[in-house]
Amino acid sequence: MEYQKPKGTRDFFAEELGKRDSVRKIMEETARSYGYEQVQTPIFEEYSLFAAKSGEELKDNMYKFKDKGDRTMVLRPEGTASIARLLVTELKARPKPLKMFYFGPMFRYEQPQSGRYREFYQFGIECIGSKTSESDAEVIALACETLEKMGLEYSLEIGQLEIFRGLLRDMKIDGEKEDKVISLVDRGKIEEIDALLKENKKAREMIDRLVKLKGEPKETLEKGKKLLEGNKSALDALANLEEILSDLNAFGVKKYTIALGMARGLAYYTGMIFEIRVGTLGAQNQIAGGGRYDRLVELFGGESTPATGFAFGFDRVCLSGPKLAEEKKRKNALIIPVGKTKKEAIKAFKALKGAVDVELDITGKGISKALTYASTKGKEYTIIIGEKEASAGKATLRDMKTGTQELLGLEEIAEKLT
Amino acid sequence: MEYQKPKGTRDFFAEELGKRDSVRKIMEETARSYGYEQVQTPIFEEYSLFAAKSGEELKDNMYKFKDKGDRTMVLRPEGTASIARLLVTELKARPKPLKMFYFGPMFRYEQPQSGRYREFYQFGIECIGSKTSESDAEVIALACETLEKMGLEYSLEIGQLEIFRGLLRDMKIDGEKEDKVISLVDRGKIEEIDALLKENKKAREMIDRLVKLKGEPKETLEKGKKLLEGNKSALDALANLEEILSDLNAFGVKKYTIALGMARGLAYYTGMIFEIRVGTLGAQNQIAGGGRYDRLVELFGGESTPATGFAFGFDRVCLSGPKLAEEKKRKNALIIPVGKTKKEAIKAFKALKGAVDVELDITGKGISKALTYASTKGKEYTIIIGEKEASAGKATLRDMKTGTQELLGLEEIAEKLT
Repeated sequence: MEYQKPKGTRDFFAEELGKRDSVRKIMEETARSYGYEQVQTPIFEEYSLFAAKSGEELKDNMYKFKDKGDRTMVLRPEGTASIARLLVTELKARPKPLKMFYFGPMFRYEQPQSGRYREFYQFGIECIGSKTSESDAEVIALACETLEKMGLEYSLEIGQLEIFRGLLRDMKIDGEKEDKVISLVDRGKIEEIDALLKENKKAREMIDRLVKLKGEPKETLEKGKKLLEGNKSALDALANLEEILSDLNAFGVKKYTIALGMARGLAYYTGMIFEIRVGTLGAQNQIAGGGRYDRLVELFGGESTPATGFAFGFDRVCLSGPKLAEEKKRKNALIIPVGKTKKEAIKAFKALKGAVDVELDITGKGISKALTYASTKGKEYTIIIGEKEASAGKATLRDMKTGTQELLGLEEIAEKLT
Repeated sequence: MEYQKPKGTRDFFAEELGKRDSVRKIMEETARSYGYEQVQTPIFEEYSLFAAKSGEELKDNMYKFKDKGDRTMVLRPEGTASIARLLVTELKARPKPLKMFYFGPMFRYEQPQSGRYREFYQFGIECIGSKTSESDAEVIALACETLEKMGLEYSLEIGQLEIFRGLLRDMKIDGEKEDKVISLVDRGKIEEIDALLKENKKAREMIDRLVKLKGEPKETLEKGKKLLEGNKSALDALANLEEILSDLNAFGVKKYTIALGMARGLAYYTGMIFEIRVGTLGAQNQIAGGGRYDRLVELFGGESTPATGFAFGFDRVCLSGPKLAEEKKRKNALIIPVGKTKKEAIKAFKALKGAVDVELDITGKGISKALTYASTKGKEYTIIIGEKEASAGKATLRDMKTGTQELLGLEEIAEKLT
């Protein structure tokens, strides 16, 4: 019987981990440069934290289990609910705004496909306690700057969920039905709306027209104003969107489209929403998404607190070909003791490891196997310590590419390799 | 109803995360300087991977759950089994030795207490494919160097499990009984051995004498040689231990005690074993433990492969007062727009953030609230941008400690704060 990793999970090795670490660092540094601080919550949480506030789809896809105390737990499917838990407990009294970021694995029981895993990583940004348009603009600018630092070409789409809600309420579609329509629009299941609104042809038509309102900002905004004429709350939302776009301009973000009929699934979104996609990925091409969720803290039993934020689909960012600065590499070498010289080899290892990436051959299998190992591992040099050389305080430095060998003192080797 | 984090888990905030990150970096850098490369495995694994090979205690303490495909999964309770899975699958054909490290959360359902959590972190080192004494010495030296880089005072104890096994087999205590005795010794339950060996008074006595053989290396080794006279396998194990200590000396590790009756719980240990403790912690004072486990890969269905390694109890290392270099801090400031100056404030933010830790006040709540926020958050400076200043391209720099204010251009502010 062969052991396997669970379906939809991954093992990572050095090279890929190096890249992922560089991506994580860029995200962290950019977040810090905007005044955001790290926070880290447990891998599993009580089921109740996610039960009420997640959409149906998410609820069905959670890894759920009972602990020995018979409490139902889940592997966290996303990061914002845990942040909400902190906001109604430990962080309740902290001065606002709170600007936080988190990074780590999340878990959803979905059919694995390219860019979608059951254990996947998110990098999230939360700006808590500010309702202004400039807070919305700030989180979008932060997302864009992060991607630009990696040289990624992306497309940014911005909407405002209250436009949709305003339109629906104006046509007496509210409460559960309102949420249902928005969820269907988000998932692109427009045909199911027909069934839901079969007695309301006018509404069906308006929704269609709103969903089609996307593209270049100025023109789209104008068309929107016409379509939404007379609907105060939808027009207010449109004005808020215009204000955010104006602030965004000050932040230097100028390339985006707007989508007035844009919707996002999670029940707690209340205002600006945005999504970022990259062309290099296939169907799973959304690499970031978020928006304003002023209802969040309330939903979790806290005081009404405005909030905005987003999360990067970390794995997808890594898959989309980020351009990362090569770390300055030190020269590398394998130290090979030959004969009774392991003490001298250990000494050489200790002397060189501050300046060179040295590995000590600790297999005791002899020079021929050690040289094979060195070339398989791509070592640039080997440092061969035979008994005769050792007694003279010297070693043979072999250039693995050219095969050239030199008998040198340790200090000379250190000098040569740095 | 108030949401809570699950018992035995923790939320981490910026300051503590900064410290933990420094500790992790020192561990990673040291491991890399010995030629070890990072590997990362999933948070959960199939139950079968841990079922057969973990001790009884560990098996009872696992977080187990069924996924939707009715497969039993566990949150990983330790890191080595996943590495073994890699060794019999993806890494099977890689040239040996394989030197790897891993870091991440592990999960055990235990009674939480100081230094013991249900979600805890391990940093582990695995050296696969080498059976020499210098490989054992290398992993011990790596552990010690890591702790010394953090200025930690620790005590290192080294043993060799085959001494115990040799002694037991010599007295016809083998198989299941042998493992049982070793497990009882490891857990300090000496009195239970009485019941197990009540018909073998001699064995009971010898075990007592062996367990007491610990202390200064030279004297203890001599006493051991006398006690074990005539028992070839125990004396071979003793000789191996001596060889390891001699190599360890070459690595510069000179302060330790040896314990000839030392035992460790996991079934797969076969040779050298070691534990490191720090005095600053209470009952849970072991911060590292490991040893040789040549049976590991075989146990998981692979070819017999020698292996040695250890893991740091990461949380305990963090709790034990590591001395960490303070990162060079940049000056920090809050930019406060007053009146209709948010565009200018965003511009100032963008201009300064490369050189200063600036945060933009995005609350729109006015100067008095912003100043309170700045002092609560410990900001050193505020940069106040009023309408009049803004139109002259200037801003007021306020030193929050002294209250001194100066009207300056942005470039002057940048110069002053860097």
